[in-house]
Amino acid sequence: MNIDLNSDLGESFGPWPMGQDGALMDSITSANVACGFHAGDPGVMRATIALAREKGVAIGAHPGFQDLVGFGRREIKASPSEVEDLVLYQVSALAGMAAAQGAALQHVKAHGALYNMACRDRALADAIARAVAAFDRSLILFGLPGSELLRAGEAAGLAVAAEVFADRAYDPDGSLTARSKPGSVIHDTQKVVERAIKMVRDQKVIAVDGSTIALRADTICLHGDTPGAADHARAVRAGLEHAGIKIANLRMP
Amino acid sequence: MNIDLNSDLGESFGPWPMGQDGALMDSITSANVACGFHAGDPGVMRATIALAREKGVAIGAHPGFQDLVGFGRREIKASPSEVEDLVLYQVSALAGMAAAQGAALQHVKAHGALYNMACRDRALADAIARAVAAFDRSLILFGLPGSELLRAGEAAGLAVAAEVFADRAYDPDGSLTARSKPGSVIHDTQKVVERAIKMVRDQKVIAVDGSTIALRADTICLHGDTPGAADHARAVRAGLEHAGIKIANLRMP
Amino acid sequence: MNIDLNSDLGESFGPWPMGQDGALMDSITSANVACGFHAGDPGVMRATIALAREKGVAIGAHPGFQDLVGFGRREIKASPSEVEDLVLYQVSALAGMAAAQGAALQHVKAHGALYNMACRDRALADAIARAVAAFDRSLILFGLPGSELLRAGEAAGLAVAAEVFADRAYDPDGSLTARSKPGSVIHDTQKVVERAIKMVRDQKVIAVDGSTIALRADTICLHGDTPGAADHARAVRAGLEHAGIKIANLRMP
Amino acid sequence: MNIDLNSDLGESFGPWPMGQDGALMDSITSANVACGFHAGDPGVMRATIALAREKGVAIGAHPGFQDLVGFGRREIKASPSEVEDLVLYQVSALAGMAAAQGAALQHVKAHGALYNMACRDRALADAIARAVAAFDRSLILFGLPGSELLRAGEAAGLAVAAEVFADRAYDPDGSLTARSKPGSVIHDTQKVVERAIKMVRDQKVIAVDGSTIALRADTICLHGDTPGAADHARAVRAGLEHAGIKIANLRMP
Repeated sequence: MNIDLNSDLGESFGPWPMGQDGALMDSITSANVACGFHAGDPGVMRATIALAREKGVAIGAHPGFQDLVGFGRREIKASPSEVEDLVLYQVSALAGMAAAQGAALQHVKAHGALYNMACRDRALADAIARAVAAFDRSLILFGLPGSELLRAGEAAGLAVAAEVFADRAYDPDGSLTARSKPGSVIHDTQKVVERAIKMVRDQKVIAVDGSTIALRADTICLHGDTPGAADHARAVRAGLEHAGIKIANLRMP
Repeated sequence: MNIDLNSDLGESFGPWPMGQDGALMDSITSANVACGFHAGDPGVMRATIALAREKGVAIGAHPGFQDLVGFGRREIKASPSEVEDLVLYQVSALAGMAAAQGAALQHVKAHGALYNMACRDRALADAIARAVAAFDRSLILFGLPGSELLRAGEAAGLAVAAEVFADRAYDPDGSLTARSKPGSVIHDTQKVVERAIKMVRDQKVIAVDGSTIALRADTICLHGDTPGAADHARAVRAGLEHAGIKIANLRMP
Repeated sequence: MNIDLNSDLGESFGPWPMGQDGALMDSITSANVACGFHAGDPGVMRATIALAREKGVAIGAHPGFQDLVGFGRREIKASPSEVEDLVLYQVSALAGMAAAQGAALQHVKAHGALYNMACRDRALADAIARAVAAFDRSLILFGLPGSELLRAGEAAGLAVAAEVFADRAYDPDGSLTARSKPGSVIHDTQKVVERAIKMVRDQKVIAVDGSTIALRADTICLHGDTPGAADHARAVRAGLEHAGIKIANLRMP
Repeated sequence: MNIDLNSDLGESFGPWPMGQDGALMDSITSANVACGFHAGDPGVMRATIALAREKGVAIGAHPGFQDLVGFGRREIKASPSEVEDLVLYQVSALAGMAAAQGAALQHVKAHGALYNMACRDRALADAIARAVAAFDRSLILFGLPGSELLRAGEAAGLAVAAEVFADRAYDPDGSLTARSKPGSVIHDTQKVVERAIKMVRDQKVIAVDGSTIALRADTICLHGDTPGAADHARAVRAGLEHAGIKIANLRMP
């Protein structure tokens, strides 16, 4: 039994630091690296790639909308063609910077509003899948289980990875409970570990109404931008390993 | 006897068109494509690559300072490390977008203030050469004949191309006459053609004081942003061909 | 019988020119000047203010989303608080630059996607109205007749101006026919003049189904970014004057 | 005996916080608020103005080069006309946002590379002074004692304030010792307080070679972006007050 642990990293920009990349990389196996449109700059990207290589973490591109001030979290009504171009641009930029350090990308995970929109809008999902497939057919595309984004990836002939959130509540239909609702985020590390184990072992999660729902779990997202994120990640990893689950990126045998 | 003809293209941005890329590509052999920092956006880059492929023009990256409003023409005191990162980022982005269309880059030509600074400052020149060599050792680096940029490219093991300007006056020391001086730009197409022929055939140019200076000429830059640029380019090409000079990009046998 | 003629101007950016501002200003009475977020830069703003003063055209702020590459035409899911701040910032910037030349602003017209969203979303409309009222209660707020934007302006105690489009088809419910539909844009100048006269004289327009609908018309928008825009504007103005209608900005007696 | 204490604030951007604005404002009397070009965004500007009003701190504009990733610290070879426009734009934006909250600006202090360049280049200094004077002749212009910036301000009819740095070493010619040299920054709070007292009481400072140099000191800059900045500011203020020096902004009687 294997699981990948991923986190969004390289989100500093110019003079502004963000996150605890170094500490987080001790626990995760896949890093989603910002590509300069919603966060990250060429210097930050170079340093994040170097850190991932040093820590043995697989590198993925984390392309987002061109919206620094909104951190790529605001939906922008971009056309599929615009989305295809901006994903291809950002994936290319990161891949080239990684290649210059002797590293190849493992995966692509869209960021923030772009990810959410593409999970439910097939035209945008297809645009992302087209960009990734045109650049490198061996890249793994991340998306929510059952989402349009995963379907588009498969239709484009890409390997896909279903991403789950052990610290987020799920509605009975398998979608994430809106952050605005009470209890939508689970802060108790022990509870998060238990949910993570169930997700990996049973490919199931208990929804907010107590019902059990099936969901494919290839990779668990660990948030890196909260206080205590590194400690939390370490505990989740230790809990999974203690339960006999192997933590490995998606390319490891 | 061969010569390459290059032009800066893909300099439109968002709703703002610039230049006559399609018409120019009928005359040139190498296109320097803006990469989004001083001009160009992912959509413009995609379209410019497609046009170059259709017209059989070799594609090069044209990275510049991150200064849209100043069009990359204002010197920015960036560190060598910052320059290395921004060149690697932009070259990677364009190369990936080209690869997605089945095309490989031929060369890299820095833009505007970055080009001018790197031609005289060895630390910046080395930074550019390092970025290009780290990405792809087979890329050809453009620079002024005798410049630090060419020296840095050679020291990094890159093939280099000496770029000359048939429509610009030269000072006796081989540098371009400052644009602020009268007569610094030559508008008469016939005169430009004559200078171009001399540059290619004799690797020489007549300076403003009447002296003859030697200069290595591997590629001639044709400006694309002036009215009549396409007609001018056509006339220069025809004049060179009439003189028995073969117009070919730098990779052609 | 009076009417104001307005146009979006000052939409050049850095090295990229746009529009025929000088020629258009001979025909219009109110200029909506871009404020640097979707178009325009500080130098363009200064020059556009100077031109408006020279031509005796009233100056208004034309704030938009921070989206240069999308020209402010893409909807961004910004919060009312974000919209209030970005409108206040842009109106302040233009007003200060105008004051430095001895000119006061007449009005505020939101741009592109921001305008369209605020016309139908009261929370965003209120945000814009709050920003304008907080800055200067004497500014006139532009919006579509019957829109949430006009209602929000009136609720905030602002004078408002209902903006109509003589060259656009209207649906029977008084909304503009979608640009994607055939016949949505009227190119025949004579027809545009007739519609403009009817709008001013009768405050009515013939909808696409032949029905007559009432609409308040305080100002007619003339597009400045199409070929022949200046000629078209001159013809519309002449046609209105020939019909005995006085062309005057919203502050003229 | 009076002295003003100023600090650069409002330098957060989008999702990235910076500095300890609230705590610092308990000690200082003048806040230099970033205006969106090198740091700050409309939301941050609004919040910083509100905080300054609440704490009774005078508000000034802190315009910089349009270089977010470089934080306005890199010299850009902009023309005097470009500098005049970008200063006027930024001062106007902040002044309007302050006016919307019922506050008027006290001063203008250029940021980073723009400040340093204008202190030694009279043409850029004149450009800044022209922008400030055109906007509001009652604004106070900050600059280094004896700098071209102060001279330009006075020539433009503006009140000026000479800014000194109690925690920086001075060369015998009155200029700040380069940060690259050992001992250029003084970390010992007690020593900083002693230097501050001497600057205010005697309008003098001991240079690195032990010589005493005269320098006009109207305002002391306290850095806000270092760890312990708020504690340091509190200690400096307390030390000055203990020495019988009144801490007051430049408009207080």
